This record gives sequence, C-alpha cells and structure tokens, in this order.
Amino acid sequence: MTGEFVAIDWGTTNRRAYVIDKTGDVVRTDRDGRGTLAVGRDGFAAEASALSARYGGLPMLLAGMVGSNRGWHETAYVPCPADLDTLARNVHWVEPARIGIVPGVSQVAGGRADVMRGEEVQLFGAVAGGLAPGDALLCQPGTHCKWAWMKAGRIDGFTTAMTGEMFALLKSHGLLSSQLHGPVVPGAAFVEGVADAARHDLLATLFGTRAAMLLGKRDAAASAAYVSGLLIGSDVEARLRDGTRDVHMLADPTLAGLYAAAIEAFGGRCHHVDSHGAFVAGITSIWRSLP
Amino acid sequence: MTGEFVAIDWGTTNRRAYVIDKTGDVVRTDRDGRGTLAVGRDGFAAEASALSARYGGLPMLLAGMVGSNRGWHETAYVPCPADLDTLARNVHWVEPARIGIVPGVSQVAGGRADVMRGEEVQLFGAVAGGLAPGDALLCQPGTHCKWAWMKAGRIDGFTTAMTGEMFALLKSHGLLSSQLHGPVVPGAAFVEGVADAARHDLLATLFGTRAAMLLGKRDAAASAAYVSGLLIGSDVEARLRDGTRDVHMLADPTLAGLYAAAIEAFGGRCHHVDSHGAFVAGITSIWRSLP
Repeated sequence: MTGEFVAIDWGTTNRRAYVIDKTGDVVRTDRDGRGTLAVGRDGFAAEASALSARYGGLPMLLAGMVGSNRGWHETAYVPCPADLDTLARNVHWVEPARIGIVPGVSQVAGGRADVMRGEEVQLFGAVAGGLAPGDALLCQPGTHCKWAWMKAGRIDGFTTAMTGEMFALLKSHGLLSSQLHGPVVPGAAFVEGVADAARHDLLATLFGTRAAMLLGKRDAAASAAYVSGLLIGSDVEARLRDGTRDVHMLADPTLAGLYAAAIEAFGGRCHHVDSHGAFVAGITSIWRSLP
Repeated sequence: MTGEFVAIDWGTTNRRAYVIDKTGDVVRTDRDGRGTLAVGRDGFAAEASALSARYGGLPMLLAGMVGSNRGWHETAYVPCPADLDTLARNVHWVEPARIGIVPGVSQVAGGRADVMRGEEVQLFGAVAGGLAPGDALLCQPGTHCKWAWMKAGRIDGFTTAMTGEMFALLKSHGLLSSQLHGPVVPGAAFVEGVADAARHDLLATLFGTRAAMLLGKRDAAASAAYVSGLLIGSDVEARLRDGTRDVHMLADPTLAGLYAAAIEAFGGRCHHVDSHGAFVAGITSIWRSLP
C-alpha cells in the first residue's frame, strides 16, 4: 500500500474509492452505497474522518454530487469552455484536512443552460488517458445522459438529456406504466422505436405505444424495448443531427449496447471507452495539475 | 320534463348527464364524480338502474370510458375514416334495458396506432351542430390531447399526444417536480417554452429547465409556465408542421388560452368551439341516426 492520494467518485447513490500511487496505478478499490443521499447533509464530516482513517491519512480528492447543494460543500461551476487546469485551480479545499472537492462544469449558450457534476472527471480523463481523441463527441448515458464536445482536450460544450429519468418516470407512473415491464434489448422493437424518434413527435408517439397494444399491433412484452428505443433514439438523433458520426461511449455494457444500436441506426459509429479507466486518468491528471 | 333520451358523457373521473327533448334541446343537466374509476367494474348495473329511475325510465345513450375495458362493456373501435352512421350502427345495446354504449374510434396509419373513446361525440357534433366546418382540424386538449382531421364531416384521421399527462408526471415526480409549482399562464416564460419546442430536443430542453434555475437564468416561479409552453408547443408544432393553419378548439377557457397562444406562435389561428354544445349536438345526431 504505497498510495499517494485517494480519489473518490461520490455520487448520489454510490461511492467508489480508488487509492492511486505515484505512478498513477490503482492499488486499492472500494465501493459502497454511501452516496450523498445515504450520508445526508450532516454526515459528511464524520464520513470523511472515517475514510481518512481507513486510508491512513492520505489526501483525498472528491468528485461528483458531494460538491452539490445536496452534498458536503457546494462548489461553484467552472463555465465552458472548461480546461483541466482551470478545474484544478478551482478545487475547493476542506480545512484542516487535506481533502479537495472538484468543481462541476456549467454552460450557457444559445439560450440553453446546462450543468454537470462528476462527469467532467471522466471526460478529461478519456482524453488525458489516451482513451479518446482530444477533439471528439463523448457520451455518458444514464438517468441524465451527458454529451460533451471536446476540443483540444477542453470541454467545449455539452448537453444533458433526461433520457433515463424519462424512461423511469413512464415505467413507474401513468398510462404506460403497466406495459413497460418487458426486457429492454436492442432488438426489432427497440430499433423500431429508434426509427420513430425521427418523427420529432415524442408526446404522440408515446401515446401510440398504448394504442398499439390495445389494437394488438405490438405485444405488450415488446413495449419497454420500443419506448426505450424511442427515448434513446430521440436523444441520439438530436445529437447527430449536425452531421457528427463518431461517438465515444463511456458506459456499462448494457447501456452502451442500447446507445450503440441507436447511434448506428442514425448512421453513426460508436467507440467504447473504459469509463473507470477514464475516471482514474482524469482524477490523477487533476491531482497532478493542482496549483 | 319532456325528455326523449338521456345522453351520458361517462369519463374516467366525471359523469355528465343531459336530458334531451325531441327538438334537441337540453332540458336537464346533472354532473357528478361517478366516473368509471369511482364506479368500479362491478358497479355499473346498479348505477344504470339508479340513473334509469332518476330519469323516469328514458332510454340512455352512454359515451366515453364506460365503453372501455375498464368500463361496463367494452365496445369495439370503429376504424378511421369513421362516419357518424357507422358509429350509430355499432352502438352496443345493454339488454334488457334500453341503454346504448357508443363505440370509440381507432386508427392504424403509417405505422402509428391510435384510439379515442368519448371524444368522437364532440367531433361529430362540432360539425353536425354547425360549430366547425366539415373539413377542419379539431383539437381537444387535456391529459391526452386529441387532434382530429375532419373531412366531409367524417373523422378522417387523428393523433393523440400525452401532453397533459407528461406535465402531470413531471410536476409530481423526478428532477423537475420541486420547481413546477408556479402559475401556468400564457406569458413570456410560456412563449419561450413554445419557441424552444422547435428545437425538437424535448429530453434535453427539459433538463435545461433545471440547469436554468440552478444557474439563476430563470426564476423557479416561471418554470411551470416554461415547461407547459415547451410541452404544448411540441404538441402544436408537430400538428401544424404540414402547413395547417386553422385549428378549431374544444376546450375549457384555461387550456384553450394556452393552446391558442402556442398555435398563434407557430403562425396558426385558433377558433373556439363550445365543447358542451358539440357533445349535445353529437350525441343527438347519433341518437337520430340509430338504425
């Protein structure tokens, strides 16, 4: 155990810790469910003490929702275009312990506002670690899917779509909820949903999912895959509309497979990137860039 | 009290009864909360007996969700293009009482399926009652907004959008729910949402609503109007995209005002139609057309 610092990816639900040595190698990894929701506003100081004890007093660099207004300390957003050095300069230090919290990134462009918190580490790391080109479109699917346009290694701009949240809402509540419990796989129903996204008529196409079942035009079991395809297709189509073709994907295999199918349906190419490797490369680069 | 028959608009939540005389005039109106949900599957026979007693044994014509698989008797859908005579021929009679249930209307076209149940009475009535032209686009906003293209008085085709349901879902659950409690009025924030609908990027634009609040770019109090504009705008834009300009609106004043603002923002004209008058004209025309 010759760690130099501990990197903690501290999200809403999960927490991952990586002990990283002087060569940038991970010498220990821990994962638990002590996300910001479980810890609660008043629990962070005690959690940090416990982590510090666990890792022998090594300095720690935290990223993710721990830096939000529902986390430990709210850190200001670094506006786009954002580079790694600016992010490192704006790390918030918790005194007296040697604990830093990485800021998020914001954007206001063309009348659109957007924010990210935690994803920026993977984005910088994908480029810094040589996992993606310095000029590239990167995608991080999930509850709130992030799409980032990297330019010379900077985050030049980004867009968040509530794709995963919308699927969860429809599955849990309202008209379609009773029919969205089939498997979500990138088969024929999924691809049909992706194609129907090109209608640009999401609210009507969603209702059509109900009607198609009532009229016996689609098996109820295929509805979930269809709606997933419709939502992911809507997200992907909007991002590739400008002619972009290559997407670098930071995701677990299941989500990556669904997004890849939609990207290919719209004529794009999906390049898979190791998201854990990107996080480690990103947080190590921020650590090395600290002023 | 010289009623000829009783027309009942029996929806999921509400029930309206109209006693109609031989000249087509309404001589009595009742409204209560005994919708299909409140009555429950096993309660319809008793409800019908009570109604029959209340209205002196007059024959009754029922329309709406009472004819669905969650109502009293499921009636088959009449496929589009649907005319009033076909609807009247397919009324389902409940024996031995003189009670008829009006069928719904279905459509399968261009890979899209759609259904309506109850709205068809207003649509036929708007034309039969001289409240709208025989060739027109009619709109019935609500939880599931119906848009019907009438041709020579027939329902030539229609589209349902889950516009109202989506607003209710977002207001009650998930990321945006905490910020969607401001007034929904057709002011500046609403019109901004309508304009942003033209981006064809609903999932990202919705997330932007959260980011705009976090970054201080839009007051939280204006978020509900903005999101309402975005959803109604998405619905309206998809319907007017083919160059249609005139929309005949069957709605209460609040919803009609919001839809009219969106229709005008996309260069259309909104013509208001008395929806209760349309229902009475429609159900009377069906009654007169019974075989």
